[in-house]
Amino acid sequence: MCHVGFVDADQPFVIPTAFARIGERLVVHGSAASRMLKALAEGAPACVTVTILDGLVLARSTFHHSMNYRSVVVLGHASELVGREEKLRALDAIVEHIVPGRAAHVRGPSENELRATRVFAFALDEASAKVRSGPPKDDEPDYALPAWAGELPLRLTPLAPLADPLLPTGLAVPAHVSGWRRGGRDG
Amino acid sequence: MCHVGFVDADQPFVIPTAFARIGERLVVHGSAASRMLKALAEGAPACVTVTILDGLVLARSTFHHSMNYRSVVVLGHASELVGREEKLRALDAIVEHIVPGRAAHVRGPSENELRATRVFAFALDEASAKVRSGPPKDDEPDYALPAWAGELPLRLTPLAPLADPLLPTGLAVPAHVSGWRRGGRDG
Repeated sequence: MCHVGFVDADQPFVIPTAFARIGERLVVHGSAASRMLKALAEGAPACVTVTILDGLVLARSTFHHSMNYRSVVVLGHASELVGREEKLRALDAIVEHIVPGRAAHVRGPSENELRATRVFAFALDEASAKVRSGPPKDDEPDYALPAWAGELPLRLTPLAPLADPLLPTGLAVPAHVSGWRRGGRDG
Repeated sequence: MCHVGFVDADQPFVIPTAFARIGERLVVHGSAASRMLKALAEGAPACVTVTILDGLVLARSTFHHSMNYRSVVVLGHASELVGREEKLRALDAIVEHIVPGRAAHVRGPSENELRATRVFAFALDEASAKVRSGPPKDDEPDYALPAWAGELPLRLTPLAPLADPLLPTGLAVPAHVSGWRRGGRDG
């Protein structure tokens, strides 16, 4: 998941949304009626931020508490994908980014659904990454304190899949669902 | 974790940061040198978005794929907390929001650290929440497809705590670390 920042009438908005990376572009999609996509279509500068929280950094002082994370900030103007094939490719990529192996398992977009969906791409020309990892960095005198310090690693982990109540009985959970893990097939 | 959106020279930025709620206010903090806090100090309109991803919604068509989530968007201008006591209270609340029970275990902020830290509060006057939960909503004809559909619930879960290599041996992991779970004591 990413967060898209855009401005509408001087007010910034930050909206969570799905995304995918295709080569040197990041793609997002949404309903044709969405305020976010309208703002992107008008060519306003935007910001897309992807953050993965890796853990909590527990220091010996309040001040040095932190988080271990990987974060990418992409700045720029979005360009709309209008060609049928590139829209289809982007929508497949977004589903595959969320659940690798999913796109081939389900019905692809109909012509009506394609028309109701707008897809925008951000070039990765102006992007910056920040990473923090490792133990806390405490002030020298604080190392003598009797406080426990270290990292609490966090992972986004799946619980047991919940079958749709309307699913026919006897339909097994496919491997792309039971084997899902954060980051998908790229780690 | 929340994402703060602000505008600097017409360019929106979206920055991940820690936060806490104190009554009807949401507080964030940062180094006095941060671009985000400079923008907030100038009184520019901002947006704070908190998103909890609860699961993936796996539909029978690409189009109806979704996520189950809880998201809050807060709009407004931040006001800086300048009083020593209210700054201390906010910094304690931020640490306690991340790891309940932590603030009493560690050294509190020194006067120098307090000066190096700016704290801003957003009133929760203009806030909206969005929640999606439950199974996919598919188009009627798609229910006959042989695709597995349902939810894959996701949780942010802790792995085993990693002691700081500089920690004295024999210092046990305290209960506020070993018992940590997403959402802390409020669920």
